[in-house]
Amino acid sequence: MNEPDTAQQANWWEQACRSASPLRFIDFNLRGIGQVMFQDNPLSGLCFFAAIGWGSFMAGALEIAIGGLLALLIASLTALWLRVETTVLHAGLYGFNAYLLGIALATFLDPSPLLWVYVVLGGAVSVIATLAATRVMQTWGLSALTAPFILITWLLLLSSNGFSSVPAGALPTSGLIQPIAAEAADPLRILDFLQGILISVSQVFVKGDGIAALLILIGLAVGSIAAAGYALAAALVSVIVAHLLGAESQLITGGLVGFNPILTAIAVGTVFARPSLRSGLYALLATIVTVLVQGAMVAAVTPFAIPTLTASFVLVSWLFLLAKPNRIEA
Amino acid sequence: MNEPDTAQQANWWEQACRSASPLRFIDFNLRGIGQVMFQDNPLSGLCFFAAIGWGSFMAGALEIAIGGLLALLIASLTALWLRVETTVLHAGLYGFNAYLLGIALATFLDPSPLLWVYVVLGGAVSVIATLAATRVMQTWGLSALTAPFILITWLLLLSSNGFSSVPAGALPTSGLIQPIAAEAADPLRILDFLQGILISVSQVFVKGDGIAALLILIGLAVGSIAAAGYALAAALVSVIVAHLLGAESQLITGGLVGFNPILTAIAVGTVFARPSLRSGLYALLATIVTVLVQGAMVAAVTPFAIPTLTASFVLVSWLFLLAKPNRIEA
Amino acid sequence: MNEPDTAQQANWWEQACRSASPLRFIDFNLRGIGQVMFQDNPLSGLCFFAAIGWGSFMAGALEIAIGGLLALLIASLTALWLRVETTVLHAGLYGFNAYLLGIALATFLDPSPLLWVYVVLGGAVSVIATLAATRVMQTWGLSALTAPFILITWLLLLSSNGFSSVPAGALPTSGLIQPIAAEAADPLRILDFLQGILISVSQVFVKGDGIAALLILIGLAVGSIAAAGYALAAALVSVIVAHLLGAESQLITGGLVGFNPILTAIAVGTVFARPSLRSGLYALLATIVTVLVQGAMVAAVTPFAIPTLTASFVLVSWLFLLAKPNRIEA
Repeated sequence: MNEPDTAQQANWWEQACRSASPLRFIDFNLRGIGQVMFQDNPLSGLCFFAAIGWGSFMAGALEIAIGGLLALLIASLTALWLRVETTVLHAGLYGFNAYLLGIALATFLDPSPLLWVYVVLGGAVSVIATLAATRVMQTWGLSALTAPFILITWLLLLSSNGFSSVPAGALPTSGLIQPIAAEAADPLRILDFLQGILISVSQVFVKGDGIAALLILIGLAVGSIAAAGYALAAALVSVIVAHLLGAESQLITGGLVGFNPILTAIAVGTVFARPSLRSGLYALLATIVTVLVQGAMVAAVTPFAIPTLTASFVLVSWLFLLAKPNRIEA
Repeated sequence: MNEPDTAQQANWWEQACRSASPLRFIDFNLRGIGQVMFQDNPLSGLCFFAAIGWGSFMAGALEIAIGGLLALLIASLTALWLRVETTVLHAGLYGFNAYLLGIALATFLDPSPLLWVYVVLGGAVSVIATLAATRVMQTWGLSALTAPFILITWLLLLSSNGFSSVPAGALPTSGLIQPIAAEAADPLRILDFLQGILISVSQVFVKGDGIAALLILIGLAVGSIAAAGYALAAALVSVIVAHLLGAESQLITGGLVGFNPILTAIAVGTVFARPSLRSGLYALLATIVTVLVQGAMVAAVTPFAIPTLTASFVLVSWLFLLAKPNRIEA
Repeated sequence: MNEPDTAQQANWWEQACRSASPLRFIDFNLRGIGQVMFQDNPLSGLCFFAAIGWGSFMAGALEIAIGGLLALLIASLTALWLRVETTVLHAGLYGFNAYLLGIALATFLDPSPLLWVYVVLGGAVSVIATLAATRVMQTWGLSALTAPFILITWLLLLSSNGFSSVPAGALPTSGLIQPIAAEAADPLRILDFLQGILISVSQVFVKGDGIAALLILIGLAVGSIAAAGYALAAALVSVIVAHLLGAESQLITGGLVGFNPILTAIAVGTVFARPSLRSGLYALLATIVTVLVQGAMVAAVTPFAIPTLTASFVLVSWLFLLAKPNRIEA
């Protein structure tokens, strides 16, 4: 989360932001989008924003991009009202949970007047949840990661069951857990394999779109080449591991197996440790474990009729970061 | 939880308690009942006790009032045996979880010899859970609130499924989550609307009774006029929000939507912050969020066949209090 | 966990371990097995190891004993790779969670190539989970107990539902919670009663075998006479309480009611407090409460199709230890 800006940006953009507060507001909102993948960089955020805009437009669901943006803006205003620390605010750390929450609510709830009420309320509360989770987790030197997004989105999605004016047509139905059966042994097509890797990147933002994935990768590389490399490697590893374990091939190709391991790899391998052979092996183990834990989360949420979101990333990253990753530095 | 006694009480009652330990015992047990709604005041406790007695009697279920009283007395004796801190004991802080637990067990379990064993065991363990939760939560400057009551009551109610001598006829049955359907658009009757507000107050003590609610409001006002005002305002807000969201009208009128937001409003707005415009807005947001989270909790506990109790109040209050409410003071 | 070796052992075995690192490796792996029941003693570990070997062999499922051993060895190698603290490693504290995990995975998953991948991965991750949980729980002066085993085993078992190459034939099926019905009042046979007590001891290691139970009791007595006494007393109390509550007689006789209370009694009564009348009463209360909480856990995991493992022991022990057991010393 401390990726420094490139020197060039700092030169004119940072000066412009210092002189004009509306530019600063735009800057830290873009950084908020960038922080979804740990990039404290407005250009990364702009690429991600473009990716979500494109993906939503192509899916005929522009309300998703709007939902993310609205929740983000509300979160920034709430953070200002609550007088949060300026350096943390300006690094975009009060924005990424809200942005994901807005996207997720607009994806799983039907378009309706109350969807927008939910997005506004959720955006505001995401800041309070971020303040709360940050305070709890810093007891052990941990970041809250996307836990505030997961908690508030799960609660709001669950609540829709009790309110008839908040229809949630895209939520799964509540069910008992069924072990999946072995599929007919179709030969694995190389295109499906590559698609699984690519779409995993865009599923970080709850989107299954190849162009969006490429834009996200570009944004990631702008912020950190290492992060982009780890993301692609993690997606590759996840898709291979999932095939070896016999995961549903539709899930793999749809990118639903790989998006959590990507976040784990970036967090454990690049954000909270310097890349090295030891830390790379540690991140590899964390990545593989996230594939398994994601399988567990899919089962665990079945009775509750909610999506897993990024719960497996948060759980595995906390475990691996709590175990003092300084042990794994050279 | 630090509401001072009125000057008058301090004059003769406090002196009587100091001179006679049986009076002190009665005093801190009454305060224990008062602390269910944050009132460190024996008169508040007496009013609440009368309310539960009346409500149980009218429902033909006097075992509920007796269950609460028995669990409370056992908790006080357990606290003495465990040599807890005297000032905390005398403020009633080891009593309110037990009192609620006794009421809840006697409400959801059938009258049977083992009910009383459960009430006694539960009352004793509630003190241990209070000591444990207090120690954990004070890491972040938080009160345990009613978390010990929720944890131990949930565990005991869940355990009844495994023991044929502990029948629990009043528990819901385990099921999958079903989104509620829109109701026929009956015109909202003003009497139902007012009843929803009033009964919300008595549902804090798992009771749906108007006279009991009035007695509770009186007890609350005796301890703190602000608390009584916030309680009524929160009940009003909750009933309106729930209607706008399309909650089941029977739940609203039965007070089952409003009792958690009432507790949140008192805690966030009056106990842990001085009432002001900023803190009032903050408490209003917390109150509305509690209505939504209560909807989420109803869905989340469906597979487990247990009631939500005050889980949404505890969860939302912890979030809003963790987020450093000093930010919201003027 | 601080049971000192007997003086004799220290004489020649400790010196041998000091001079030869392969002996040290064997020593701390055996202590790892011993720590399942809090015995920092290689002879205890050897007895437990023999018990699991015997039980697995008699059940025609030697893969269970091998699974435990493999996970244990992988955990020790992982701990060395992560450069954990030597004194903690040599006390066996990075081994017991892995040993239980290996046994549990080999019990509930079908023998298959991926079972062994799971055992190896699980063994490695159990160390990371132990480091993580230890760091969190030491905030309140608590041991992580078997929480790492429970967390990682639950996740791996849950994940099997999503992977067709990881069949889990011995897992229960996901279902709704059903209160058990009263059984026909068969007269309680004394042999069944004694069997329930004995088998409870071996069920600590997920085994239902009388000879194994006797070997475990011997190993326990080698490490600590008090622990062996508390274990037997807790098993007796659990079986009696479960019968009085009307638990399913097949569960009681199969030792599935008593294994968690045994661990609670040893932990609360002997490991973290000096045995005394007060601490004995405290441990008795904790033991009885664990029987109830175990009933609750059986219900709670029903929708998730996973076994309860030692969750009720961990939950109740944490509660009772958090409540400052120094209060209960004489």
